[in-house]
Amino acid sequence: MSKRKLLLLFILAFSQTFAQKNDSIFIRKIYDQALSEGHSYEDLRSLCKDVGARLSGSSQAEMAVEWGKNKLQSYNFDKVYLQEIQVPHWERGTKESAWVKTKEGKLISLKILALGGSVGTNGTLRAELVVFHSLDDLKKAKESDVKGKIVLLNQPFDEKMVNTFKAYGACYPIRGDGAVEAAKLGAVGVVVRSLGSSQDLHPHTGSMHYEDKVNKIPAAAIATEQADLLDNLSKKEKLEFIFELDCKSLPDVKSYNVIGEITGTEFPNEIITFGGHLDSWDAGEGAHDDGAGIIHSIEALRILKALNFKPKHTLRVVLFMNEENGNKGGLTYAAWSKEKGEKQIAALESDRGGFAPRGFSCDGSNEQVALLQTFQKTFEPYELHVFEKGYGGVDINPLKSSFEGIPLFGFVPDSQRYFDFHHAESDVFESVNKRELELGCAAVSSMIYLLDSYVK
Amino acid sequence: MSKRKLLLLFILAFSQTFAQKNDSIFIRKIYDQALSEGHSYEDLRSLCKDVGARLSGSSQAEMAVEWGKNKLQSYNFDKVYLQEIQVPHWERGTKESAWVKTKEGKLISLKILALGGSVGTNGTLRAELVVFHSLDDLKKAKESDVKGKIVLLNQPFDEKMVNTFKAYGACYPIRGDGAVEAAKLGAVGVVVRSLGSSQDLHPHTGSMHYEDKVNKIPAAAIATEQADLLDNLSKKEKLEFIFELDCKSLPDVKSYNVIGEITGTEFPNEIITFGGHLDSWDAGEGAHDDGAGIIHSIEALRILKALNFKPKHTLRVVLFMNEENGNKGGLTYAAWSKEKGEKQIAALESDRGGFAPRGFSCDGSNEQVALLQTFQKTFEPYELHVFEKGYGGVDINPLKSSFEGIPLFGFVPDSQRYFDFHHAESDVFESVNKRELELGCAAVSSMIYLLDSYVK
Repeated sequence: MSKRKLLLLFILAFSQTFAQKNDSIFIRKIYDQALSEGHSYEDLRSLCKDVGARLSGSSQAEMAVEWGKNKLQSYNFDKVYLQEIQVPHWERGTKESAWVKTKEGKLISLKILALGGSVGTNGTLRAELVVFHSLDDLKKAKESDVKGKIVLLNQPFDEKMVNTFKAYGACYPIRGDGAVEAAKLGAVGVVVRSLGSSQDLHPHTGSMHYEDKVNKIPAAAIATEQADLLDNLSKKEKLEFIFELDCKSLPDVKSYNVIGEITGTEFPNEIITFGGHLDSWDAGEGAHDDGAGIIHSIEALRILKALNFKPKHTLRVVLFMNEENGNKGGLTYAAWSKEKGEKQIAALESDRGGFAPRGFSCDGSNEQVALLQTFQKTFEPYELHVFEKGYGGVDINPLKSSFEGIPLFGFVPDSQRYFDFHHAESDVFESVNKRELELGCAAVSSMIYLLDSYVK
Repeated sequence: MSKRKLLLLFILAFSQTFAQKNDSIFIRKIYDQALSEGHSYEDLRSLCKDVGARLSGSSQAEMAVEWGKNKLQSYNFDKVYLQEIQVPHWERGTKESAWVKTKEGKLISLKILALGGSVGTNGTLRAELVVFHSLDDLKKAKESDVKGKIVLLNQPFDEKMVNTFKAYGACYPIRGDGAVEAAKLGAVGVVVRSLGSSQDLHPHTGSMHYEDKVNKIPAAAIATEQADLLDNLSKKEKLEFIFELDCKSLPDVKSYNVIGEITGTEFPNEIITFGGHLDSWDAGEGAHDDGAGIIHSIEALRILKALNFKPKHTLRVVLFMNEENGNKGGLTYAAWSKEKGEKQIAALESDRGGFAPRGFSCDGSNEQVALLQTFQKTFEPYELHVFEKGYGGVDINPLKSSFEGIPLFGFVPDSQRYFDFHHAESDVFESVNKRELELGCAAVSSMIYLLDSYVK
């Protein structure tokens, strides 16, 4: 090897080491900010308590938009603005009651939550209960076993799955498709076991859908313990299920994504988008889902500004509206950015709760995943260890079709407790640990810093 | 290379791969047992609710010994027995009150917990309050500034430390040595800021010590919020601190370590010891500290038995008594095993709470740490990533001097929430998540299996 080549290699190696050392120093500052001068815990308290649950189309969601705009303005980012969108408007109503009646006429009161998007029962609906343990079981049933009945889909999480999102994914069809499949066989209503990890008395709501030409039947979630109770009782005797819902869908309404930016010094038209979703289900306070993601994202940008970081690319935090029941925020944002002629170079979403960070996933090419993995060493002192191929997030997903080749990153916190709170009344501010939230903010902020430095 | 050598190498590589594959299959079974047929959550509930807090020398500790023996017997291990020890007996008493009085005579009631081992106040004790922010600050003070006064040591956790045990270690001296150092300068009492992560109203107790020839002054912990309140008030005006404690030390009493074993098939006299401590402080229910460690250890052995695992070495679970204020269980156990002529080949302790597993630490030689690191790949599907040099545990630590070269392993769960509960009334069963506990049991059980297979 020539001396010149050797020198070049030496300089290259030295500058890489130097860059990594600088990254480590800067990321330590990010963590110090998050942990000792952070705004995240108070900001989450305010979102949960001053606004509360914030379902698309509700007055609470309207307040959440105001809250978000004020919050971003208070941090003096270069730009803060709203992006208008149209969102579905479904209301739970005031009637949500259920009972089961045994053969001897004994009534047991049950706690249910209508699934988002469900039609109401139009008065009291009562019919014989028939139980299935998965959507596939239901699909295989004879019409004569289902027709005129109310279907209970009691599929529990597979506890053996270490990552709870996998267990959730496996059960998701009973909630998403249960009403359609039950109606195809002539059922008059459907009740699904809540998609949660624990045996408890909280029903967990969530979205469902109907299909054209299939009868729209009312659908509700029941708590895991009560689903098992019904399941066990039904093995011994015929049960009558009785429920009333007056939920309904209304015309779409106007709402907004809330956007804040620090303008890029070198490539202002090249955007790194990151965010969570501002809307939530109407049970609880949307603290983990996705108050935490909103706060991770706002705090990530606040910290970078507080440290006087001048990004090369434009860093844009987006508080997406309507992830839960339509994703109109994510869809509109991607289309709007494309139309403006922007270049989206990377996007990151936090929508898996405010728990202790484990790492990041990357929905991208092998090279993009490999880039992510080069960050692992830098994050080691902060106990992050997951750097792998995986999903980005619902809100940022539409960017993929508008911006070919864009890598999408998902923030990955510990998953064990998430589905104790998800879409349930237990998802309140008090269920979030201050340090776990702060560590999430630091991890997201550090990742945005690294993406600005290394994504091409 | 000769064909013979090549063949040998091939066989070696093949058998290693085969061994790792077998390990992976067996460890998957361990996890399945823990997650879907586990006894841990119900066992912890029973320990916390049927026995409760269990300070050495108390009747609750006596019941805990019975509970432990019954529990181990119910799992039909090869041997279950008690090992007699002598433990200190300190009682909190019934009087535990405190106030601060402002210059204008306004009284503010405070919540305190006597530190374990403290003398009482012998009636109401009142004196001017003087505040320091570390033990070093106190040591540097002039006698005239401290004499006759009550010292508040208000040193908060360093929030910037990612691992909370490091922050705890840095603050530990104010609790352990505060009374001695304050008394050396003539103080009449000492109050320490609770060693906790969060700003709250729970005082956290814990052990302290006295020294011969230094006046024994009463010592109590105060909640973090109230320590800051006093600190802030004291900057504006002179404060009088008033408190009463009637805690006292009584003569040592008889107690027991509780021991269960599966006898080794090849080397019955070679022991792998693992456990946690059965005693706890008297605030809360000792759920994380160290009910979780007790349950991790019992369940680890139960699972191996349920899977019909025949260990080469004797696997011995020890429910140590008196870790919190004397470590008589650990000391007696090490001496007894040595005297019996046993060979202790490895030991493991779980005493850092029932949170989601992060990995294991090893207090041992570089070769022993390297062995631990060979397990990392096997644990990857279970989200364990910490495999490093580090502390084993208080109970197993005395084995080091009795058995030269023994590697000590510590189970390392996530640390973020531990010091919200540690030694405080908040450390109750409800603060433990079922899945996090179960994953800890599986991790410990898998580690015991691997140690039996690979430690020499």
